[in-house]
Amino acid sequence: MAQPNTPMPAFKQVAVLASPSNTEAVALCEEVAQFLGRHKIAAASGLLQGESTQQALRQQGADLVIALGGDGTMLRVGHICAPLNIPLIGINHGNFGFLIELGPQEWQHYLPRLASGEYSLEKRMLLHVQLRRGEQVLGSWQALNEAMVGRGRVVRPVHLSASLDGTPLTTYVSDGVIISTPTGSTAYALAAGGPILPPTLRNLLLLPVAPHLSVERALVLSEGASITVKLERGDEAVLSVDGQPPEAMQIGDCVDVRASEHSLSFVRFREASYFYQRLLSLMANNPSAGAAA
Amino acid sequence: MAQPNTPMPAFKQVAVLASPSNTEAVALCEEVAQFLGRHKIAAASGLLQGESTQQALRQQGADLVIALGGDGTMLRVGHICAPLNIPLIGINHGNFGFLIELGPQEWQHYLPRLASGEYSLEKRMLLHVQLRRGEQVLGSWQALNEAMVGRGRVVRPVHLSASLDGTPLTTYVSDGVIISTPTGSTAYALAAGGPILPPTLRNLLLLPVAPHLSVERALVLSEGASITVKLERGDEAVLSVDGQPPEAMQIGDCVDVRASEHSLSFVRFREASYFYQRLLSLMANNPSAGAAA
Amino acid sequence: MAQPNTPMPAFKQVAVLASPSNTEAVALCEEVAQFLGRHKIAAASGLLQGESTQQALRQQGADLVIALGGDGTMLRVGHICAPLNIPLIGINHGNFGFLIELGPQEWQHYLPRLASGEYSLEKRMLLHVQLRRGEQVLGSWQALNEAMVGRGRVVRPVHLSASLDGTPLTTYVSDGVIISTPTGSTAYALAAGGPILPPTLRNLLLLPVAPHLSVERALVLSEGASITVKLERGDEAVLSVDGQPPEAMQIGDCVDVRASEHSLSFVRFREASYFYQRLLSLMANNPSAGAAA
Amino acid sequence: MAQPNTPMPAFKQVAVLASPSNTEAVALCEEVAQFLGRHKIAAASGLLQGESTQQALRQQGADLVIALGGDGTMLRVGHICAPLNIPLIGINHGNFGFLIELGPQEWQHYLPRLASGEYSLEKRMLLHVQLRRGEQVLGSWQALNEAMVGRGRVVRPVHLSASLDGTPLTTYVSDGVIISTPTGSTAYALAAGGPILPPTLRNLLLLPVAPHLSVERALVLSEGASITVKLERGDEAVLSVDGQPPEAMQIGDCVDVRASEHSLSFVRFREASYFYQRLLSLMANNPSAGAAA
Repeated sequence: MAQPNTPMPAFKQVAVLASPSNTEAVALCEEVAQFLGRHKIAAASGLLQGESTQQALRQQGADLVIALGGDGTMLRVGHICAPLNIPLIGINHGNFGFLIELGPQEWQHYLPRLASGEYSLEKRMLLHVQLRRGEQVLGSWQALNEAMVGRGRVVRPVHLSASLDGTPLTTYVSDGVIISTPTGSTAYALAAGGPILPPTLRNLLLLPVAPHLSVERALVLSEGASITVKLERGDEAVLSVDGQPPEAMQIGDCVDVRASEHSLSFVRFREASYFYQRLLSLMANNPSAGAAA
Repeated sequence: MAQPNTPMPAFKQVAVLASPSNTEAVALCEEVAQFLGRHKIAAASGLLQGESTQQALRQQGADLVIALGGDGTMLRVGHICAPLNIPLIGINHGNFGFLIELGPQEWQHYLPRLASGEYSLEKRMLLHVQLRRGEQVLGSWQALNEAMVGRGRVVRPVHLSASLDGTPLTTYVSDGVIISTPTGSTAYALAAGGPILPPTLRNLLLLPVAPHLSVERALVLSEGASITVKLERGDEAVLSVDGQPPEAMQIGDCVDVRASEHSLSFVRFREASYFYQRLLSLMANNPSAGAAA
Repeated sequence: MAQPNTPMPAFKQVAVLASPSNTEAVALCEEVAQFLGRHKIAAASGLLQGESTQQALRQQGADLVIALGGDGTMLRVGHICAPLNIPLIGINHGNFGFLIELGPQEWQHYLPRLASGEYSLEKRMLLHVQLRRGEQVLGSWQALNEAMVGRGRVVRPVHLSASLDGTPLTTYVSDGVIISTPTGSTAYALAAGGPILPPTLRNLLLLPVAPHLSVERALVLSEGASITVKLERGDEAVLSVDGQPPEAMQIGDCVDVRASEHSLSFVRFREASYFYQRLLSLMANNPSAGAAA
Repeated sequence: MAQPNTPMPAFKQVAVLASPSNTEAVALCEEVAQFLGRHKIAAASGLLQGESTQQALRQQGADLVIALGGDGTMLRVGHICAPLNIPLIGINHGNFGFLIELGPQEWQHYLPRLASGEYSLEKRMLLHVQLRRGEQVLGSWQALNEAMVGRGRVVRPVHLSASLDGTPLTTYVSDGVIISTPTGSTAYALAAGGPILPPTLRNLLLLPVAPHLSVERALVLSEGASITVKLERGDEAVLSVDGQPPEAMQIGDCVDVRASEHSLSFVRFREASYFYQRLLSLMANNPSAGAAA
């Protein structure tokens, strides 16, 4: 619930972050920090810089991050906050974003509630993704939206075999395979034809992108599922996590995906149902559709 | 083109028709007829009555019908006009309709062009549909949108075998099978997952509704295609043409569908591209979609 | 796991049931009961008769039902077993069935394990479905697969509004809306385009059938979700539960669906992964698909 | 028809081509040429080498090419044959291919018909594809399957605007957009969710790959349609024609696609309906599907 009877604890040190490349967000950054100060919430503004930002948050003892920008910025900030166990809230200067709680006209109305404890925390599942060549782990990542194993620059289907909990499942001939969180069900997985899961569910989603005479439907799996996708055939295939720069894969490489031990908490001022209403109003094309016979 | 260099012939006797059950349309009916009279176009208003309407149109020597109502009204008027070879134009009092050219605020602007010949005729393909028990033809219909063979009241899949030009094609276990015109590609066939065809194409579309482990994709066929759908299994199955009251089918009954020798001409004041723009703006949910990573 | 270290308790009184209309199943019925007797498992054969069967099972003190037939038979037997909390196992005499554990060549191999305790119980979620006119409850049902609210015999879309936990969600213009269990995700919901859920998950699935410019995607909801679907517009609409004879609905009638307090336990001899392998092998059309460029 | 009353002209000089990288095909190459010689059909074997092959075919005066390999080989040979107006026939050494007429066990049965004129020619539409930066044409191609404009190596959606006959149509936020021939409707377009068109139709197909809250449905367009896709936003986007190595695109670059003045003729020994039967048997997962209630 957005306004529980028992107030939530007030935040003590808020970091307000913007992407350096987003001039509007940078401009807003200091304004938001000062606004919080006037409402008795200690806040420092800064630019999003990757690892140095993580260090800075730790040193500041930040217990909340406010991120300014689009869903891309939220994903990057989320990757920083999750291992530190710091909650996150997003303010968007324009476009709709599934990871964003507040619009440009709304933040002045809602942010004072951080002081009065009139908010809730929405805990979201992350994925632990690892790229493996035989026994050698080439890298590992936390994903808030999804991991995608698929074609790189060459526009031809790749052949991927998927297994679940160590048991072979099926082979996909497709542009790729997505393993998604519930949060990611409204991102790339939605574009690939998947179902919609409320972000607080704890399921994994496995589905192909543009499957060619392969299994087309998404599989909804339990939180405990362990998925491995192996590249059987395909030139220049890649692993991409949350749309970050892709990792090159070789034939035989495996990507292992399971629920992460980390979560990412989002601050919410609204009811959970707001998620559906916002999404479905986007998707319902024509409320007065009278075209069918 | 909407405004060809050579003017089209002026219409000599226009029939303005409204569905008796649609009070707004009935009210508008006489108003439109009088408006046409003031613009030197002979016009008579009337109510849509089925067969008697067809006789009346023949007796009046009507060379254009203006129909007031929704897509359902247009379908019924279309069934009357097609065998008489009378063009049709639709005015809608509200909702969007794919078969409707003019909205409630537009007709006064466009209708005077009927006198000056500033219009075009858009010829649309119809289907000839026949229900057959062995050699016995139980009925035949003209379809502007589609024929649907499928489940009746019992919500269980039926088993249907489809053949093309006398050759077995596939078996569908599904709620039903749709055979659609290009016009119908934006009606029931769209809901069932089919592609969009501009209404002036001359192809047939064959696709299932809710197929269960059967072929899912629509087939786009040439104008000369002859399709037969046979009811192999299923209680209380029906044939439905353009959403009209359904016809009961027995196991073994066949529905034969091919392009009709009749066409239906729609009067158009706008460019053909208007069709796409109207449709795609309906379907594009979110022009500023920035949600994906 | 199919063969746990600790054996499961042996069954004491097994009822073997066949649908009276299925002659092959009736013939097999007595054979299975005698086979069990020779393996020291008390068993009685009988015909599936609705309410009287439920009484008979109670009187016999049956602690397991073996059902012979297809998925339709399994659904009917499931409706009887669930309130009695009796586990179920299905033997099919031919076709593939998602609810069936054993084929005609397999039962003699596996059934002796009922005595040695080498089996597992797979607990499946049911839905509680109620049809309501204002405050008046017209009927209620347990669903193993799904409830469907939609068009009856007239092949035109109905208008349905759906709400989740009392909050309006969206409006569907469609052939209908399905609310499905994970078990039902491979039945009608699959045909309507939904994702696949392993039968042991505890989620609800909400999705439309043939939506016309409405939300198309399935929603995966948590076990605690409470869904109401209201008939806003549409002639002769119906509620259908697990494909049973449909219930007539009037404009304004509501269907309320939530997880049932009952479950239905299926006896399993195989690993849970067998479910996926069987399903996906059905869905992967062409393992050697080399058709794409 | 496969066996017309009037025999087709006999071929005078056949070139039998295999991809150098396909050792099985190379081995078969000489065998097929000798077989034809024994049946009084002049034939020369060779390896597929790009431009030099085109010159060699011209010098030989080849009036038929037999290509050995998979669909990829057929596409490459097709690009060579189309401008020379030489018909083509494919023999596959294993996997199913939509562009292949004969399997490894079939060619000895069918090829003698080339001498007796017992074959037909199936003329297939090609696309003319051009990549343009402002007024400057950067390259042009003939496509037998499709052109795809979309993401390159970076796994993020691109923003593409499409126009039809010079009129803006819609904007796609997606992995890409495919413009396909009827032949290509069973290649990448099928994977992307498109309908199936028999290869002899003369329509264009326009559809997105993994669209994010954009128009999802395929558009079936007339042969005369002229489509332009412009890259509005997206890093490292590419144009890919028939799965060949991709061309880099910059923001603002346009891809123009229309029906080509060239066609490609395939030799057919079977009825046209064979196409459907082969395809649909692949796609119908389970003829005895009895899983739904």
